[in-house]
Amino acid sequence: MQLPFELPRAADLSDPALTRTLQHQLDHKTKPLGALGRLEALALQLGQILGTDQPTLQAPQMVVFAGDHGLAARGVSAYPSDVTWQMVENFLAGGAAVSVLARQHGLALTVVDCGVARDIAPRAATPGQPQLLLHKVAPGTQDASVGPAMTAAQCAQALHNGMEVVRALPGNALLLGEMGIGNTSVASLLLARLCGVSLQDCTGAGTGLDAAGIERKRAVLAQALAANATATEPLAALAALGGFEVATMTGAVLQAAQERRVIVVDGFITSAAVLVAARLQPAVLQRCVFAHSSGEPGHALMLAQLQAKPLLDMGLRLGEGSGAALAWPLLQSACAVLREMASFEAAGVATQGG
Amino acid sequence: MQLPFELPRAADLSDPALTRTLQHQLDHKTKPLGALGRLEALALQLGQILGTDQPTLQAPQMVVFAGDHGLAARGVSAYPSDVTWQMVENFLAGGAAVSVLARQHGLALTVVDCGVARDIAPRAATPGQPQLLLHKVAPGTQDASVGPAMTAAQCAQALHNGMEVVRALPGNALLLGEMGIGNTSVASLLLARLCGVSLQDCTGAGTGLDAAGIERKRAVLAQALAANATATEPLAALAALGGFEVATMTGAVLQAAQERRVIVVDGFITSAAVLVAARLQPAVLQRCVFAHSSGEPGHALMLAQLQAKPLLDMGLRLGEGSGAALAWPLLQSACAVLREMASFEAAGVATQGG
Repeated sequence: MQLPFELPRAADLSDPALTRTLQHQLDHKTKPLGALGRLEALALQLGQILGTDQPTLQAPQMVVFAGDHGLAARGVSAYPSDVTWQMVENFLAGGAAVSVLARQHGLALTVVDCGVARDIAPRAATPGQPQLLLHKVAPGTQDASVGPAMTAAQCAQALHNGMEVVRALPGNALLLGEMGIGNTSVASLLLARLCGVSLQDCTGAGTGLDAAGIERKRAVLAQALAANATATEPLAALAALGGFEVATMTGAVLQAAQERRVIVVDGFITSAAVLVAARLQPAVLQRCVFAHSSGEPGHALMLAQLQAKPLLDMGLRLGEGSGAALAWPLLQSACAVLREMASFEAAGVATQGG
Repeated sequence: MQLPFELPRAADLSDPALTRTLQHQLDHKTKPLGALGRLEALALQLGQILGTDQPTLQAPQMVVFAGDHGLAARGVSAYPSDVTWQMVENFLAGGAAVSVLARQHGLALTVVDCGVARDIAPRAATPGQPQLLLHKVAPGTQDASVGPAMTAAQCAQALHNGMEVVRALPGNALLLGEMGIGNTSVASLLLARLCGVSLQDCTGAGTGLDAAGIERKRAVLAQALAANATATEPLAALAALGGFEVATMTGAVLQAAQERRVIVVDGFITSAAVLVAARLQPAVLQRCVFAHSSGEPGHALMLAQLQAKPLLDMGLRLGEGSGAALAWPLLQSACAVLREMASFEAAGVATQGG
């Protein structure tokens, strides 16, 4: 698929000298070697992303990408499409899980209408309150079970919108969230198409289908794969099977990666956007911190494809960015350990065998 | 073992009406049923401990119990006993992992000298800074490989000290931390004696022994079990095999349980104190939130005995309370979800199938 603009480039961050400096620092903190386990690996990664041995996370941005899906009319979700715009209003009003968790952790919350079926009324920005950005490509995608969900031009527009969203946001960390009734179907389709995983394995209950519902969903997804059989390369698959929120998020991930922002990946759907971005530019993954293992069964298969080991495993299956928000304090802890913990020498503590 | 005072009593907290109220609230929040996974179970538990459907965590107290061990002279640790007092100074100076994490999360930090071998100089309390409490029973326990680590009177004193420590602290949440070179040996011994787990399975590397070191440690622990063969009931085992910090912590846990404080359990050693307390009063466990699965292999066996499933699994093996501090924001999130998330009705969001 040809794009009328250049996608951002994610350079390889490998820097052996910085890695050695970071590892040396960690090894000389007042604790047994490696005793902070995965928090140390996380500190190392954050230092590498931000290019410093004293990483500080600044002005973290939780962005919730919202869109509707033609597939939803085929009954692939336990909830009606109207819940998408209703939840957007709930995010902005402060009553959703991601609203509560973003407040708790001081994350600026932005909701992007990437393609919600109903028009969301614009509102004046209020400092400290969630903001709404209107980047609607169309009021919902087409039904992917009978043809492409979006045109190439629409997909390009969504990618570009995502790049613009990130460019306009301050800070050095992007937390990914999403809302869109029907979008576990999108994630399953992209996993099936880009990784060759069977729909049997990558289709789950989403927001709460029963066993018969999952069977119906699987049959609809099989139709979608068949109706878009030639869409095999990453962007073509994204256009044919994706949602506007997933395509906008893909653009956002590529932009954030180019800018060396820390990218905190939530669950199954945000991982699907990262999958597409990583197929275009594998170095994107160097910037990604995977927040949690979702209760949605396809996520484990997606994570295996991305060779990712998430921080949390709490059986979450909500999306919105809720898992990314819950994991956020661990990133802050990792940076604080690097910046604030004393060395054996500075603290006058004897070393091993000393 | 007879005590010259009554131990605190942990009443059964079961309250089916409150449980139903909490579950009803969680089920009507704007999310699919159960979509917040283990965070919902945590919210339910915190509501039950605090006896309210709107739980709020107040003035959380991180208490690090420190003590030395006669067993350390037998080479059961990779570090010398001097590291205990040196790390106490490091906790108070703000350079240790638990100092950094407590600061990050606004946890008041108290370090208790329960029986450190060297005298720690008292210091004036400064608001907002870590405080030191002197409750030294003796300068280190006796060598448990040749006889009881402490006398019955010393054990009683330590238990009483722990009760006093908690009584004097504000708030409704106690986070357990510990420091004591040699105290993974104590935890292994208590696990072996009280649960019948073999030393083969419950002895690990601690702060960093190699394979030969672990073999030596295991042999010393076998001597300790043999030298204290008649100490089988919980308090007798605690006196014979325990450390002053573990016994003081056991008293603290019992007191906190009576007062319906939330008890956040760190790793292997704090779990050993909870094991003793729970053998005396099983309802203690209703108040316990297990923060993480330690990299120390005995911890998984200990957790299985306590039927506990910790929140985090990050390969931590530091102690100090570092895992409890890392998990703390999850408890705050669980309460925030109950208090602040909107219901479907209040937010005007359609319910499943609606």
